[in-house]
Amino acid sequence: MRRSGHIAVVGVTGYAGLELARILLRHPAVEAPVFYIREDNGTKWLSQIFPQLRGQGDAPVQALSLEAITASKAATAFLATPHELSAELVPALLEAGMRVVDLSGAFRFRDAETFTSWYKLPAPSAYSLNEAVYGLTELYAKQIAGARLVANPGCYATSVIIALRPLAEAGLLTGENGVVCDCKSGASGAGKELRRDLQFVELDENFKAYSLFSHRHTPEILEHTGLREDQVVFATHLLPLARGILSTIYVTLPAAQTPDSVEALYRKFYAGRPMVRIWPAGKLPELQHVAHTNFCDLGFALDEAGRRLVVVSCLDNLGKGAAGQAVQNFNHMQGIKEQTALQ
Amino acid sequence: MRRSGHIAVVGVTGYAGLELARILLRHPAVEAPVFYIREDNGTKWLSQIFPQLRGQGDAPVQALSLEAITASKAATAFLATPHELSAELVPALLEAGMRVVDLSGAFRFRDAETFTSWYKLPAPSAYSLNEAVYGLTELYAKQIAGARLVANPGCYATSVIIALRPLAEAGLLTGENGVVCDCKSGASGAGKELRRDLQFVELDENFKAYSLFSHRHTPEILEHTGLREDQVVFATHLLPLARGILSTIYVTLPAAQTPDSVEALYRKFYAGRPMVRIWPAGKLPELQHVAHTNFCDLGFALDEAGRRLVVVSCLDNLGKGAAGQAVQNFNHMQGIKEQTALQ
Amino acid sequence: MRRSGHIAVVGVTGYAGLELARILLRHPAVEAPVFYIREDNGTKWLSQIFPQLRGQGDAPVQALSLEAITASKAATAFLATPHELSAELVPALLEAGMRVVDLSGAFRFRDAETFTSWYKLPAPSAYSLNEAVYGLTELYAKQIAGARLVANPGCYATSVIIALRPLAEAGLLTGENGVVCDCKSGASGAGKELRRDLQFVELDENFKAYSLFSHRHTPEILEHTGLREDQVVFATHLLPLARGILSTIYVTLPAAQTPDSVEALYRKFYAGRPMVRIWPAGKLPELQHVAHTNFCDLGFALDEAGRRLVVVSCLDNLGKGAAGQAVQNFNHMQGIKEQTALQ
Amino acid sequence: MRRSGHIAVVGVTGYAGLELARILLRHPAVEAPVFYIREDNGTKWLSQIFPQLRGQGDAPVQALSLEAITASKAATAFLATPHELSAELVPALLEAGMRVVDLSGAFRFRDAETFTSWYKLPAPSAYSLNEAVYGLTELYAKQIAGARLVANPGCYATSVIIALRPLAEAGLLTGENGVVCDCKSGASGAGKELRRDLQFVELDENFKAYSLFSHRHTPEILEHTGLREDQVVFATHLLPLARGILSTIYVTLPAAQTPDSVEALYRKFYAGRPMVRIWPAGKLPELQHVAHTNFCDLGFALDEAGRRLVVVSCLDNLGKGAAGQAVQNFNHMQGIKEQTALQ
Repeated sequence: MRRSGHIAVVGVTGYAGLELARILLRHPAVEAPVFYIREDNGTKWLSQIFPQLRGQGDAPVQALSLEAITASKAATAFLATPHELSAELVPALLEAGMRVVDLSGAFRFRDAETFTSWYKLPAPSAYSLNEAVYGLTELYAKQIAGARLVANPGCYATSVIIALRPLAEAGLLTGENGVVCDCKSGASGAGKELRRDLQFVELDENFKAYSLFSHRHTPEILEHTGLREDQVVFATHLLPLARGILSTIYVTLPAAQTPDSVEALYRKFYAGRPMVRIWPAGKLPELQHVAHTNFCDLGFALDEAGRRLVVVSCLDNLGKGAAGQAVQNFNHMQGIKEQTALQ
Repeated sequence: MRRSGHIAVVGVTGYAGLELARILLRHPAVEAPVFYIREDNGTKWLSQIFPQLRGQGDAPVQALSLEAITASKAATAFLATPHELSAELVPALLEAGMRVVDLSGAFRFRDAETFTSWYKLPAPSAYSLNEAVYGLTELYAKQIAGARLVANPGCYATSVIIALRPLAEAGLLTGENGVVCDCKSGASGAGKELRRDLQFVELDENFKAYSLFSHRHTPEILEHTGLREDQVVFATHLLPLARGILSTIYVTLPAAQTPDSVEALYRKFYAGRPMVRIWPAGKLPELQHVAHTNFCDLGFALDEAGRRLVVVSCLDNLGKGAAGQAVQNFNHMQGIKEQTALQ
Repeated sequence: MRRSGHIAVVGVTGYAGLELARILLRHPAVEAPVFYIREDNGTKWLSQIFPQLRGQGDAPVQALSLEAITASKAATAFLATPHELSAELVPALLEAGMRVVDLSGAFRFRDAETFTSWYKLPAPSAYSLNEAVYGLTELYAKQIAGARLVANPGCYATSVIIALRPLAEAGLLTGENGVVCDCKSGASGAGKELRRDLQFVELDENFKAYSLFSHRHTPEILEHTGLREDQVVFATHLLPLARGILSTIYVTLPAAQTPDSVEALYRKFYAGRPMVRIWPAGKLPELQHVAHTNFCDLGFALDEAGRRLVVVSCLDNLGKGAAGQAVQNFNHMQGIKEQTALQ
Repeated sequence: MRRSGHIAVVGVTGYAGLELARILLRHPAVEAPVFYIREDNGTKWLSQIFPQLRGQGDAPVQALSLEAITASKAATAFLATPHELSAELVPALLEAGMRVVDLSGAFRFRDAETFTSWYKLPAPSAYSLNEAVYGLTELYAKQIAGARLVANPGCYATSVIIALRPLAEAGLLTGENGVVCDCKSGASGAGKELRRDLQFVELDENFKAYSLFSHRHTPEILEHTGLREDQVVFATHLLPLARGILSTIYVTLPAAQTPDSVEALYRKFYAGRPMVRIWPAGKLPELQHVAHTNFCDLGFALDEAGRRLVVVSCLDNLGKGAAGQAVQNFNHMQGIKEQTALQ
């Protein structure tokens, strides 16, 4: 029998995995988390992988095997695994009666072709794609509550979509003049791979743009804002800090607005959504305000004519941008308060 | 008798002042620099203000007085002073037969009203404004060579204008869809004032936008690119590092280009201009590459349709963005190689 | 009637104050915290001072007045105030029947003269000094539980005393050859005062020693380790990071030890003390492991002869070094689990 | 015929190699540097490896081969190669009539056994060891001037020996109570190897000790200060910054000194040595003061009794700690001013 407090966490060794472990170890509805890792190196406890977790609870670690996971009592699995591995594991986990929150990109698109063309990988099975709900909590909370499979959004995509969706639903996002998304991320967003350009000496006192016109989070932004690819320029940059994404987003509005009307629009859209905080007109959010939290903070500036809008959206790429939102989605799936373990 | 190697440096205590001192102390054409400071606190030598300069040459420091400066043999004065003070000093220095490189904003505009409306300060005298040449070396080298007064550009403005001017002269900067300048600067660009938001704990692991639609470098950008204010969004951000500006600039081109045609356009425009380095199509410059140099590095990306262009421009805000460019201009005024003391 | 869940927090505007606010807002035994600030500027809510707290609970802010505090129902007051102000407020608060956790240095010494000679300030009244218990939780938990006044230790002193006290009680701290405490702190430890040397540009990519032979935490170290002033060299340094202290402490042992015997000694001493974590011989703790926690981590290395011991002790200066330990002490005063709200 | 301005630089791809390249490209006595790299990947120019060097001069790159180097006209070779490779190359280069500045540890010890026991590698040939002069310029300038082989010192060792040698020669370094060397280095000192612990996210906001009682620079310190191993504790730490070493060194003096006598002793010892700067009593040097320079800065504090001395020594680990000192030694070998190309 699967039990709701029992969970499996697969692929815990990356930065999002560690953040997920931290949150789940303190989660009151999680009784018996088991962590699965790909390297079968005899590790038995999470605190062996992350010594900094000692004294904050611990959990068993097992070598990753589909049999072990499906044979467990876990009702829910979190996958912090590479796209290919998620694509492979998810159908089997669903079939075994488990619910899944997948942090990879494998199930983020309704359309298999979008995945294959942006990720250059075979798409997951249609069976599993049909189950997937895009896990941007504030937009799809109801569907997430009932989902068997939640595709947790990309970190950049989360910051951009939260900023643009209210405009889209209000008919203010026409794509006129194009939308520029100038996004900046801390180094943990680039993952834990051993790469020269992620070494301290290379990033320290440095800043650079990368993946112009080619970042894989692009199709998520298009799908959930309704913009066409030729209407968006999405540019990503690497900041010399560990955690956080700040997106500066430039929109031309089809009709003049006032600071008050823009603020009201955002406040109304996110009313009852405690994880999105709207800053009053004239104040802008900062990365420090959201680091180590699950908040997405939104602020904006409007030109005098009321037509050119700059929205600043920031979040912690490991929090709301990954592990935090995964747990926020899990909370909805469990029918408990969405902030549980996230404040 | 004024002597060309004798120079006066006024207002050396800020970060640009220190950088200016470093460069001038190693400058082969500078014989006898004298530094003037506003605080008459008995300081006699530059190394008392900046102990890190010891062993790298030294120079006398005097209390700032117009009489002292004009009575000296200095042929050229560098002013690293507040706008108001520059506005006040410059006419007298010109009248005394000196040439001036002014790092403040006071003389950057042909039109006095532009200055007063953006800086909320009285404009300098028409006499001195008429003399001023805008000191963006690569654009106005000839005029600078003969100038009595050079208005050294703003740091952000330098990075943006160097990126946009070649497009403008080629007829590719029509302002269609608007031009977005998303600029990020290190903390030394904000000056040395004691401000809470410039303290280490406030900036460390932080990133934020500021001065949206209101930054004082805006009118410089307009004047030297030919764009109208309603065609430019200029947004500035503060990076958690000491030195450097990286501007990501989004332009819609009136006609399709190829990466090769864009690269060729930039290479041709800056041929013979050693301080601007063009990166080959597909490679983007990084802040580390220009920190502690006088280079402005340009790279770009173009979408498949060849209409949407992203230009990345970076420089050291204390180098090419301030003290370095001031000396580059001085070198032209002296008729010597423009890189002198800058490599 | 005073009520145990009602607390007053005085002087919340510094970095330790913010950390205290964060912890108390999530503390299950704290019902109605009221924050008092010295500037009567009309501020009504904590989230006005710290906008980043929005959405994480809020609390009223009042202008600091002894009358207001003593007239409240608060049973306990936390003082994050300057030494002089603490010295003045504490006697009155005690007299009004409140219990106090004071984060300043005013009540850390049994002997008034020690305070006056190191702090160059008048000592607090004998009445209040007699009540004070030194709040290094792991050493004095019992006395703290019954205390009316807890003097929360200095951040450096906490890191050093936790490392040395087990040696002292085992007779291994004879002071032979002297004890060297080479301590390094992040910038938040220097407080929030507007000082040139705490600006980002001055600290970034920098590192320096300060206050050699003169740091005010010295007498705390002497008093709680039993060492004489001529037996200790205590040197402090400023790290280019926000949070954390790492102390490297050099001791000559009077008799040879083995890594196992040293590890056993520390493990035994801190058995049942969850906030001190002992690292196994051969592993050393790192600042990242304790940042944003209330842990003090201890590791060590021993030379082959077993006589020269290096202990590495690290903690978060705002956590275990200030606000965290204050709450840990409060928990003991309330008779609740000491980790409450600290994990 | 070998020509003195022709030089070979072997192993340029690390951080010290890049620094060496920067300095040599601007060195007036270097005519035709050729760089040799181990990877034969078709690279032809230095600016292909380090694009940031473009516009600052360039130099040819060749695949490393002993034949190529010895067949060249180069009179001097700089080796920035691993210990084993230096051990192998040096004898052949000497035999070919070249002079060598080796930055590895292979030739730093008079005694082959010291090398083998600390480095766990076979020692170089006796022939080459007999030629080696330890390249701490300030101590051995005369021998360096005539040397065929200079063993450039370790970065930590340089900072410690410069601080201790004047005391040793004055009879003030008796080893009484032991000498504690608490040293902190920036990340570039750990080299350019791809290691998890050198990634940005692992080092950022972090600080830790490493290699206690086992660092390979220990025997250099012993050999050039005259201390015995049991008289020195040498502890190394990793700072979250790119460049710089600051060593805090604790000595018990055999007889009381005054601040003036200590300052005088250091000033006298380093008189005429422009690369060592003595700070006046009461002032301490900082890493920022020496970053990107070839200076070693010394400051100190003395306790009231005049017996306990703390010396603070700092330098740039890539400058005076590696490439800078290598060129300083080269300058002596060429009989030119030692600061050439270093200011």
